[in-house]
Amino acid sequence: MKKYFTLFFILSLSLGFAQKRAQIDDQIKIGIEELREFVLIPNDALILDNIDKNIEWLSENFKNRGFQTKIIKTEGAPLFFAELSKNKSAPSLLFYMHFDGQSVDPSKWNQKNPYIIELKEKSGLGWKKIEWSQLKEEVDHEWRLFGRSTSDDKGPIVMFLNAINLLNKNNKEIQFNIKVILDSEEEKSSKPLPKAVEENRELLMADFLIINDGPVHHSNKPTLVFGCRGITTLSITTFGPIKPQHSGHYGNYAPNPGFRLAHLLSSMKDENGKVIIEGYYNGIDIDEATNKILRSVPDDITTIHNNLAIKNPELVGNYYQEALQYPSLNIRGLSSGWTGEKARTIVPDRAVAEIDIRLVMESDGNRLKKLVKDHIAKQGYFIT
Amino acid sequence: MKKYFTLFFILSLSLGFAQKRAQIDDQIKIGIEELREFVLIPNDALILDNIDKNIEWLSENFKNRGFQTKIIKTEGAPLFFAELSKNKSAPSLLFYMHFDGQSVDPSKWNQKNPYIIELKEKSGLGWKKIEWSQLKEEVDHEWRLFGRSTSDDKGPIVMFLNAINLLNKNNKEIQFNIKVILDSEEEKSSKPLPKAVEENRELLMADFLIINDGPVHHSNKPTLVFGCRGITTLSITTFGPIKPQHSGHYGNYAPNPGFRLAHLLSSMKDENGKVIIEGYYNGIDIDEATNKILRSVPDDITTIHNNLAIKNPELVGNYYQEALQYPSLNIRGLSSGWTGEKARTIVPDRAVAEIDIRLVMESDGNRLKKLVKDHIAKQGYFIT
Repeated sequence: MKKYFTLFFILSLSLGFAQKRAQIDDQIKIGIEELREFVLIPNDALILDNIDKNIEWLSENFKNRGFQTKIIKTEGAPLFFAELSKNKSAPSLLFYMHFDGQSVDPSKWNQKNPYIIELKEKSGLGWKKIEWSQLKEEVDHEWRLFGRSTSDDKGPIVMFLNAINLLNKNNKEIQFNIKVILDSEEEKSSKPLPKAVEENRELLMADFLIINDGPVHHSNKPTLVFGCRGITTLSITTFGPIKPQHSGHYGNYAPNPGFRLAHLLSSMKDENGKVIIEGYYNGIDIDEATNKILRSVPDDITTIHNNLAIKNPELVGNYYQEALQYPSLNIRGLSSGWTGEKARTIVPDRAVAEIDIRLVMESDGNRLKKLVKDHIAKQGYFIT
Repeated sequence: MKKYFTLFFILSLSLGFAQKRAQIDDQIKIGIEELREFVLIPNDALILDNIDKNIEWLSENFKNRGFQTKIIKTEGAPLFFAELSKNKSAPSLLFYMHFDGQSVDPSKWNQKNPYIIELKEKSGLGWKKIEWSQLKEEVDHEWRLFGRSTSDDKGPIVMFLNAINLLNKNNKEIQFNIKVILDSEEEKSSKPLPKAVEENRELLMADFLIINDGPVHHSNKPTLVFGCRGITTLSITTFGPIKPQHSGHYGNYAPNPGFRLAHLLSSMKDENGKVIIEGYYNGIDIDEATNKILRSVPDDITTIHNNLAIKNPELVGNYYQEALQYPSLNIRGLSSGWTGEKARTIVPDRAVAEIDIRLVMESDGNRLKKLVKDHIAKQGYFIT
């Protein structure tokens, strides 16, 4: 759903807020019908045939808008590229979106087919299906579309195409050289992408990169985010006895890898979520001008906390936007022995923590990883 | 395998070390054949029909030795009881063993049928199958028997029966009133047992309880353990955001339940594995006489550490036997988000630690649980 709003955003940027509402609503109707057609083509990232059928649709619909298109072969599924270039010397904008979706478990959908979009309106705390015929009348901007990839990320592709239509209808000349790269394996971590980008350096060269994929702001206002945090990962395993031992026979004697891991992890961060490894936040300096911009984001802290159902946030930054300017140190997974019904009275042989470090421009992932590794070694651990 | 040795132990106790080796070996041959027959009756604790067929075998074989037998109905599978009482006024010994086994995954066995015992001898680092016909010749005490429940815990039952035979053959009068209770759900935590014991208080009343189930000492010497540590359990869940959040969007803001759990757990124990919650070890006082006995156990620390593949033990006690005289606080399981291949870049919604507390005579499980809960509350957590 989150992408639905972006449509208004792109249209607004293109046409200005004074543009007649009626014209926008007409284009929304066309866009929604086009999205229904596009979503109807299954896009399971794991099925190569799905990807090819989507590329056929994309080729046709980008060509309709005057784009030159190209299929970029990779080590995995092919990527789709399109270019609209009326003025080669103009600055170029490269748009990134993706058309693959996660695999579907139909039993998790309360609609017949996740690829058949349903139109719904708010009803109490849930959503009620409404007839498509209602689309012929006035568009209600509070309606929502439900279907696989409707928001993530086919919606933005269709919005993009319809924004081009609106610009044409209003005889607005595009002042940029427009390039579009559409990913086919975003839901599988985009493994072939980096190599393909290097191999097509010239083709993809641009002055600006715009990624039409991300969360909608809780205020529902159109959102532009400058910069995205990168990522690097670490996996930490502490070892206890070589095989799990009976806790009655060896509890209090065989070292428990879970407690070892707990000590290790808690030595990295204070109780407020701040990394206490020296130098971790080096190089990050948020000046007053930046602070002013960050503070101007209309974050409603009560809404954010209610949405997350948390009482207090971590205190890396003084407020949400500032927190995102720092690298993180996040435990994304923990495991040792068994929990729940399967729990067994053992001293486990190992405990694992999966860590991800979110990176900002000033932070070098390798430097941060080295700091963490050095810290672990300093606690007396041997690192392989 | 571990129980194999107990046979020699019981025989030795009964007959004295001067007893002719030949007579013991003859009885071992009879015992092994009897064990083959007993193990051949599947004893999956989850299949009630399995349990009934084992009870038939037990009734017949205990009656053969002059025991009076009884089936004790419970809320689960029935228990088996037998009594050999020549002198009601003599002190009574109650033996506990169990005849159920864990469910079998035949693919995990490198023999055709886990219920068909195979006889093996050491071969390099592994074991080599030998013919049963060899049993007719001299018994090699280094042979091993491989089959479901051969050691845990059908072996001790057969050893017990054969020890009775040997006593009779040597006209040794049993100076005790012998009672035997055989559990049918030990591998499922013996849930019906406590109630059944209360309901059969009179029947089971005894001066001593001997449990023929437990590990063999690494020295391979016959082992008597005085006292067994009990157990109580706790499950600790820390909560982060109400649903897992994208670590790029909410890392550094939504509290990470894994770090919260790590801080909580590491506040309970020091780096040496000693519980630092005040009063946890209260009431435990090991006097010099006890210490002397504990120190006389021939534990070979190098062997223990090599077997566990550990460098240093936890330091709750000054040595292994002393460590077992204290209650433990053991993390038997940890989980949060996903680890390994399935790891996802999220701030998980929760982290779970499964704790077991091993109890000694002086420690009250409820008191220790309360100490842990109070400690958690003191860290600012709300406990449900």
